[in-house]
Amino acid sequence: MSAFSNGDIFVGETLGTAALILLGGGVCAAVTLKKSKALNAGWLAITFGWGFAVMIAAYMSAPKSGAHLNPAVTLAIAANTGEWGKVPLYIGSQLLGALIGAALVWVTYLGQFQANEEPTLGIFSTGPEVRNPVQNLLTEIIGTFVLCLAILTQGLTAGLGLSGTGILIVAFTVVGIGLSLGGPTGYAINPARDLGPRIMHALLPIPNKGGSDWSYAWIPVAGPVVGGLLAGGFYHLAF
Amino acid sequence: MSAFSNGDIFVGETLGTAALILLGGGVCAAVTLKKSKALNAGWLAITFGWGFAVMIAAYMSAPKSGAHLNPAVTLAIAANTGEWGKVPLYIGSQLLGALIGAALVWVTYLGQFQANEEPTLGIFSTGPEVRNPVQNLLTEIIGTFVLCLAILTQGLTAGLGLSGTGILIVAFTVVGIGLSLGGPTGYAINPARDLGPRIMHALLPIPNKGGSDWSYAWIPVAGPVVGGLLAGGFYHLAF
Amino acid sequence: MSAFSNGDIFVGETLGTAALILLGGGVCAAVTLKKSKALNAGWLAITFGWGFAVMIAAYMSAPKSGAHLNPAVTLAIAANTGEWGKVPLYIGSQLLGALIGAALVWVTYLGQFQANEEPTLGIFSTGPEVRNPVQNLLTEIIGTFVLCLAILTQGLTAGLGLSGTGILIVAFTVVGIGLSLGGPTGYAINPARDLGPRIMHALLPIPNKGGSDWSYAWIPVAGPVVGGLLAGGFYHLAF
Amino acid sequence: MSAFSNGDIFVGETLGTAALILLGGGVCAAVTLKKSKALNAGWLAITFGWGFAVMIAAYMSAPKSGAHLNPAVTLAIAANTGEWGKVPLYIGSQLLGALIGAALVWVTYLGQFQANEEPTLGIFSTGPEVRNPVQNLLTEIIGTFVLCLAILTQGLTAGLGLSGTGILIVAFTVVGIGLSLGGPTGYAINPARDLGPRIMHALLPIPNKGGSDWSYAWIPVAGPVVGGLLAGGFYHLAF
Repeated sequence: MSAFSNGDIFVGETLGTAALILLGGGVCAAVTLKKSKALNAGWLAITFGWGFAVMIAAYMSAPKSGAHLNPAVTLAIAANTGEWGKVPLYIGSQLLGALIGAALVWVTYLGQFQANEEPTLGIFSTGPEVRNPVQNLLTEIIGTFVLCLAILTQGLTAGLGLSGTGILIVAFTVVGIGLSLGGPTGYAINPARDLGPRIMHALLPIPNKGGSDWSYAWIPVAGPVVGGLLAGGFYHLAF
Repeated sequence: MSAFSNGDIFVGETLGTAALILLGGGVCAAVTLKKSKALNAGWLAITFGWGFAVMIAAYMSAPKSGAHLNPAVTLAIAANTGEWGKVPLYIGSQLLGALIGAALVWVTYLGQFQANEEPTLGIFSTGPEVRNPVQNLLTEIIGTFVLCLAILTQGLTAGLGLSGTGILIVAFTVVGIGLSLGGPTGYAINPARDLGPRIMHALLPIPNKGGSDWSYAWIPVAGPVVGGLLAGGFYHLAF
Repeated sequence: MSAFSNGDIFVGETLGTAALILLGGGVCAAVTLKKSKALNAGWLAITFGWGFAVMIAAYMSAPKSGAHLNPAVTLAIAANTGEWGKVPLYIGSQLLGALIGAALVWVTYLGQFQANEEPTLGIFSTGPEVRNPVQNLLTEIIGTFVLCLAILTQGLTAGLGLSGTGILIVAFTVVGIGLSLGGPTGYAINPARDLGPRIMHALLPIPNKGGSDWSYAWIPVAGPVVGGLLAGGFYHLAF
Repeated sequence: MSAFSNGDIFVGETLGTAALILLGGGVCAAVTLKKSKALNAGWLAITFGWGFAVMIAAYMSAPKSGAHLNPAVTLAIAANTGEWGKVPLYIGSQLLGALIGAALVWVTYLGQFQANEEPTLGIFSTGPEVRNPVQNLLTEIIGTFVLCLAILTQGLTAGLGLSGTGILIVAFTVVGIGLSLGGPTGYAINPARDLGPRIMHALLPIPNKGGSDWSYAWIPVAGPVVGGLLAGGFYHLAF
């Protein structure tokens, strides 16, 4: 990971994760908020929306920072390469970007949010269909393991991050994981993607927004952290 | 932008933008007009339809003019490169192409339009779900900023325009922006795409076509212009 | 077109067009026949199904014959290159392949067809939503013009036909044309795709199959022929 | 096939087929189980889910074993190259992987399965809409023939297996076959994909899970075996 300067990593990961959350949270807002042209566009729209969000964000950040955009990916790469020095910078930038992105979703859908009458946490963060911490954690570990192992076997250039057409493949990988493994918990598979927007949901002045479900918040952080580390270690041993 | 001759720019941008609007307006007609096989095919059909419209149009115009097809993209490139001389030619050709493309939608769906009983502006131009000029403008600025920054970081060859597989990536980018940011205003993100068809909507002899909503018309022009200029300037500074 | 031997052209175009119609007719059967898992999967399924049908068929026939699979494409290439000698062999092979492919649809969905109670022509051939010969012809001309011009500007290697990743782009082009221009007539945009299955529909022993609508049959032949020739001539002049 | 070591073949095919079935079975679980965010997402979600499952699994196993992931593909390659020595190792690893993948679907959707009230075989294995052994067998033969011939003409590098962007094309090929030929039997087109999960369905402690339909189980094994061998032989003769 040392090929990128600290400044570039900060810019790349903050910008990229902001774009990821703007677009990923955006599609959730588009499909669920009243007075949206995409209302009820369905699960396929959500999964393709998140996949193309990854694609757009990764192209923006790839030349700066290798487009990790996800602490679990950063940890998987570190567990594979053994280089941990820049992990805090990556993760801090990702969390900052996620906060910014979530705020931009609110700006983009301002009129819709101002007329809001229902809980909106689902636009920002994930939650389980069946609340069962052990299963929920396992589902997030499995989903993130698949994501990170896929990224390591698909798109990485010498451990540095994503580039080129590998980014398109990763985008469709995210669509696939959403379609196949997203049913139980909404596939956080990224601690920054869940925690950043959850903090912003707690802060933003949205009428009738409902609670931010902090009792669940540790699962979409811990599950992806474990899944990413396992994937990095497995890749190091097996490939 | 100077690598293309004036004649080629005129042909490429007029042909390409005509194809873009024929296909983009076409999918809106297909999904909303009665007696269409695609009636109620939904938002996913519209967003993929517009994405592939960009793809087809961009391959047609790339060898002639670099496939801008959008005044906001032309302005973003100019703001990045500092070369403004050919901007009027690009934008004029794009607007002409948009007028031709909108007329071709009418020809393609002639029988459907002749039997029309409802307002048809939505087939030609965009409109807000919540009418709030400040938010609508912000939404269009944000969407266009993401589009233009994505194009600049993805598909450009030395500032000249799109080519090769970058065009496919841009097409999916447009699908993604539609899914994620299109809910509030219908994602004009292109002044020619909105203004040209709006003029044609006012001119065409469609029964029961309804008004052309000229009071809103400045927003899908001004928002994309601002968003494109900001993206070009940001790219110039940060990349 | 002379780079391929007559035998290879015959095998490639017959095999490829058979695969195209098996898969394209197959998705229409899947979505419309009772006792199919895909019943009511919708217009998006049909358009992506036809797009991937083109993709699969084109990869099969590209090394043999350049993957024309469509008399309109063959005519567009001939109008561009001026070489007409192999046009009859291409078109004859395409029509034979279309007959075989339509019979294979019947085999694949045999149990569904044996229990059929409704008109089935729509699984085999196209028909208009509004029956208006002039408009229907114009719609097919426009759709085929866009298809052939797109193929000429995207995927051709020296006028010989499709190859490589250009085939994927053409597949998405067909999806896009279906979404945008398919609403009025069902986008034949290929004389063999419509005439071959129509003949087979007339011949096959399907209960309650309804008529084969021969009075319309000339339009999805004549429209694509005109559209392909216009596209080839336009490309020759403008590119 | 001899370019890969026996150990790598075992790891690659077991890992890859486990990922394939986890993701492929996962999308079936996501769309059909109650308390899933993807409930009723429809046939298009299922077909794209299986396509991206193949893509993800193939990238994981390509560098180890060439990503066959399917006894029918292994047999098609053997019938083409005449090298049969490693066929048992490939097929055994694929079946083991399918068992593991089906168990992982159960873990991922544990809370949903524990609350299950309806037959669940459709999440694990295929079944016919019209029960007619001859037709069902023909449908699976045709579908597998198209799959294997497509793979042989698209993505193979010197008979060794899949690699590079060919994998993306194969993924869309699987989506296309599902859309076009999946209606009658649910497109097993892979003996391991059907038999492994059927065994696991019989073993797993799922309440109200219903029977495992062993009387049908031979068809999605025999059909793909015949289809794969025919495709390999046809390719050997014709290409």
